[in-house]
Amino acid sequence: MLTSNSIGNRLVLTSFGESHGKCIGAVLDGCPAGLELEEKDIQKMLDLRRPGQSLVSTQRKEDDRVEIMSGTFRGFTTGAPITMVIWNKDQNSKSYEKLRTEMRPGHSDYPAYIKYKKFNDFRGGGRFSGRLTATHVMGGAIAKKLLKITLNIETHSYTYQIGKVKMKKKEVTKSFKTTYSNDVRCPEKNTAAKMKANILAARKKGDSLGGVVESVTTNVPTGLGEPIFGSLESEISKAIFSIPAVKGIEFGSGFAGSERFGSQNNDAYTYKNGKVITSSNNF
Amino acid sequence: MLTSNSIGNRLVLTSFGESHGKCIGAVLDGCPAGLELEEKDIQKMLDLRRPGQSLVSTQRKEDDRVEIMSGTFRGFTTGAPITMVIWNKDQNSKSYEKLRTEMRPGHSDYPAYIKYKKFNDFRGGGRFSGRLTATHVMGGAIAKKLLKITLNIETHSYTYQIGKVKMKKKEVTKSFKTTYSNDVRCPEKNTAAKMKANILAARKKGDSLGGVVESVTTNVPTGLGEPIFGSLESEISKAIFSIPAVKGIEFGSGFAGSERFGSQNNDAYTYKNGKVITSSNNF
Amino acid sequence: MLTSNSIGNRLVLTSFGESHGKCIGAVLDGCPAGLELEEKDIQKMLDLRRPGQSLVSTQRKEDDRVEIMSGTFRGFTTGAPITMVIWNKDQNSKSYEKLRTEMRPGHSDYPAYIKYKKFNDFRGGGRFSGRLTATHVMGGAIAKKLLKITLNIETHSYTYQIGKVKMKKKEVTKSFKTTYSNDVRCPEKNTAAKMKANILAARKKGDSLGGVVESVTTNVPTGLGEPIFGSLESEISKAIFSIPAVKGIEFGSGFAGSERFGSQNNDAYTYKNGKVITSSNNF
Amino acid sequence: MLTSNSIGNRLVLTSFGESHGKCIGAVLDGCPAGLELEEKDIQKMLDLRRPGQSLVSTQRKEDDRVEIMSGTFRGFTTGAPITMVIWNKDQNSKSYEKLRTEMRPGHSDYPAYIKYKKFNDFRGGGRFSGRLTATHVMGGAIAKKLLKITLNIETHSYTYQIGKVKMKKKEVTKSFKTTYSNDVRCPEKNTAAKMKANILAARKKGDSLGGVVESVTTNVPTGLGEPIFGSLESEISKAIFSIPAVKGIEFGSGFAGSERFGSQNNDAYTYKNGKVITSSNNF
Repeated sequence: MLTSNSIGNRLVLTSFGESHGKCIGAVLDGCPAGLELEEKDIQKMLDLRRPGQSLVSTQRKEDDRVEIMSGTFRGFTTGAPITMVIWNKDQNSKSYEKLRTEMRPGHSDYPAYIKYKKFNDFRGGGRFSGRLTATHVMGGAIAKKLLKITLNIETHSYTYQIGKVKMKKKEVTKSFKTTYSNDVRCPEKNTAAKMKANILAARKKGDSLGGVVESVTTNVPTGLGEPIFGSLESEISKAIFSIPAVKGIEFGSGFAGSERFGSQNNDAYTYKNGKVITSSNNF
Repeated sequence: MLTSNSIGNRLVLTSFGESHGKCIGAVLDGCPAGLELEEKDIQKMLDLRRPGQSLVSTQRKEDDRVEIMSGTFRGFTTGAPITMVIWNKDQNSKSYEKLRTEMRPGHSDYPAYIKYKKFNDFRGGGRFSGRLTATHVMGGAIAKKLLKITLNIETHSYTYQIGKVKMKKKEVTKSFKTTYSNDVRCPEKNTAAKMKANILAARKKGDSLGGVVESVTTNVPTGLGEPIFGSLESEISKAIFSIPAVKGIEFGSGFAGSERFGSQNNDAYTYKNGKVITSSNNF
Repeated sequence: MLTSNSIGNRLVLTSFGESHGKCIGAVLDGCPAGLELEEKDIQKMLDLRRPGQSLVSTQRKEDDRVEIMSGTFRGFTTGAPITMVIWNKDQNSKSYEKLRTEMRPGHSDYPAYIKYKKFNDFRGGGRFSGRLTATHVMGGAIAKKLLKITLNIETHSYTYQIGKVKMKKKEVTKSFKTTYSNDVRCPEKNTAAKMKANILAARKKGDSLGGVVESVTTNVPTGLGEPIFGSLESEISKAIFSIPAVKGIEFGSGFAGSERFGSQNNDAYTYKNGKVITSSNNF
Repeated sequence: MLTSNSIGNRLVLTSFGESHGKCIGAVLDGCPAGLELEEKDIQKMLDLRRPGQSLVSTQRKEDDRVEIMSGTFRGFTTGAPITMVIWNKDQNSKSYEKLRTEMRPGHSDYPAYIKYKKFNDFRGGGRFSGRLTATHVMGGAIAKKLLKITLNIETHSYTYQIGKVKMKKKEVTKSFKTTYSNDVRCPEKNTAAKMKANILAARKKGDSLGGVVESVTTNVPTGLGEPIFGSLESEISKAIFSIPAVKGIEFGSGFAGSERFGSQNNDAYTYKNGKVITSSNNF
């Protein structure tokens, strides 16, 4: 399929809507019948995404309430496409009129103008606004439930780095619980405090800071993913780069592995006679 | 893509909704920016489909008003997915409760129950209701505009047969204008009258009648369609069989050609030295 | 996917090759590991297709030998794409040179010239030759094995009509065995004899005859196929129209149903309280 | 499409074959008619990939000769699928028999065994061998020609890092010509010498070294790629992670941008009144 507002194979998410149009929304097709699903399941995840919750994120207020429009019946999925929508409350786009001619660096304003000419909905970035990642969250909330129920797979993500401040130890699995205990969502209390201070300092100067998010997924069964072009790495990276500001991704040791010897990269584990012999240098 | 609520390659229609859910709707992705599009363009086609307009069709009242939720800006398409929705007014589904156990012949009630178990939205056929063809019309209304503007292609459809009453002469191109002059939408006045009489007679006995719809498409450029599995016939038939009651399709002379000699089927036209020499036995 | 030389969702067949090129072939992707598969399994089906076996079909000789190039290991499929090829023996295409300018009616010669200009491989119809249906057979031979093993589904096809001669009784399931007992592959002995006589009479005059093939599939589980655009009828018709000469398809009672009353089409079966009550007017 | 041995939308590459089977190959579908294409065009690129050319790469000898099996006619593409194959010369897989039970770390031996059980073609990694990247090169060689002819786009790749040795200056566009002047394919002569020395030192100890490849693409038109899930970054990363050893990818400033302030990332360019005002802090 050539159209690019959809992603997935067996579970397909189609995103629609504009930042300052009537709504943003998504259709998730391929979800099996019988999954318990209510708006609160999706709302819970949207609330975590919602900007304006603390001083460290965008101050724009988005009181996003999801509405399920199709695909559920009496609290369960039916097997039909699940349509979810957030109605945009504030469609007052006057303040964005200047975006027609003054285009913001680091945004899609200019390429969208070149691509769609005067027909582009430029209000607040329109179709290209970061606000649209809420449609990814809608689909992700359901995928998360499916992965947990069917394969017991869980993914935990947290802020690993803000500017030059990085997490120190990597005992992440122990600290998943503390991720949401602070504004910056870093599981390490002291590191989180430093990150926050740096963000606030940058904000005072009208600036912002880059960062790195790390994800840990547990219970991934051996052999998940497909050869040649459908590896987990291929599918995940394709999805992740649909988040506007992302500029890099790495798996496992990532770029650090480039500096190592093959023996260092490989002695993590060895297989012999069908058995996995884990070395002490585990990862 | 495995999911089957979408159709198309460059222009992809995703259908959603249930007969007695909140709404039925569609997302059309791939429409270029700059097409003039308002709700009335789609409403016009939906009005032609709407049941309850005369004695010869379903008496169910559906006052379907389309709402464009995304993809247009100041009266033109933006290049973003176009979401269209009809809100279901009458969600009183009490009268359908008996469909849980008493399944209608010729409907999807039974296979849907087998496939989705107790999770199926059985109300009025739910996802499988003929009402869902309104989502095809939504996409079709836009496709029709695009085909006309880009390639000057037009398609005209009319009732060719009801029960055993068939159209007599095939001067159809002359009579496109008269198609909508009668309830049964047959371009031949006298044939239309007979068809109507037969339908009303059947209805009196609590019965209905089968029929055949014929379509004529003009200005199709030579070479449209793709080899091997993407011929116009393959793509059109795939789409047409998504209309619930359709049980057969034929192109050109169709099944009649099976009874003829090759010389009869072929002498319609001959090519020589790159020129088309049309025979008198034209079709 | 826009490209049209592939078909299928979970099991995808990609066809390649030209009638007078080096070869014709196919890649079948999505076949699970562990299916017993040797060249003879595919050859058996290709032999049934091969022209030149009797007086009633094309006299062109095609001694097609399939070679499996990838996807099997020690007699079983591995889960990798299965590539199958037939090497074209006679690439002497001199006799086809006139097709560059003299285009045959009822063939793709003219549209292919318009579409691909002077780059079209016109030799014997090139990519559009009926010979390419051998690549469908390659994929079909494996699909047939999979359907039998996994769901016990079997499909039987036979010649139902040649010109104006049709089969009389429809006790087809009893007569599958006799389908291949005669040249025209009609299960009814006497009908087959008439068909053959008519074909030979037409041939004497340098002519040919149209026909109808009927297929019966057994053990199709209730609920097979997907809503809305992925019904069995949609998927099958899309595939069938990739066979060049096919101009029509019907399912069940097909066009005959158009002439009947709804009560006649529906009383074949009735469901009540979850049970199927078959009427005497069975189908 | 669920099957994962294909990649692309308008131009679709399907990879097939096994490291020690009869062959490896690819079908490229969607290439327009009229592109000048001979085996030497593809061979030229395969020769650059071929291992065993110097002391710094795998010593395995692969004298890969490509054969075009379909899709070209008299030196030009026809619009039909282009099938390319390399026949494996040395199918003696005795030496790989031990891979059935002794699985190599850092290879797919173990997950492939879990996924495909005893049916996996384990010989030399079978379907998962790095040798299969030759099928990517086949498709890439044609894509490269198409990109150059249609959009004047060119991509240049070179070794940026081996172990801890990195390139110093980034005047890469000046030095594309020198990329292939040395074994390690690093445009900087002195850096290349250090890289080579380190590789040879590692090899002496039976070890190997990681590295980073950098690519520069010129003449990319503004607006290339599609929203939301079809950005250039999404499509390229999906493709790149199909190369077995790749563990990370970054675009533009990549991970380095994470350490910077927004003002640093953004002041590279500013748009005002539809004009691009490039700052001195260019990228």
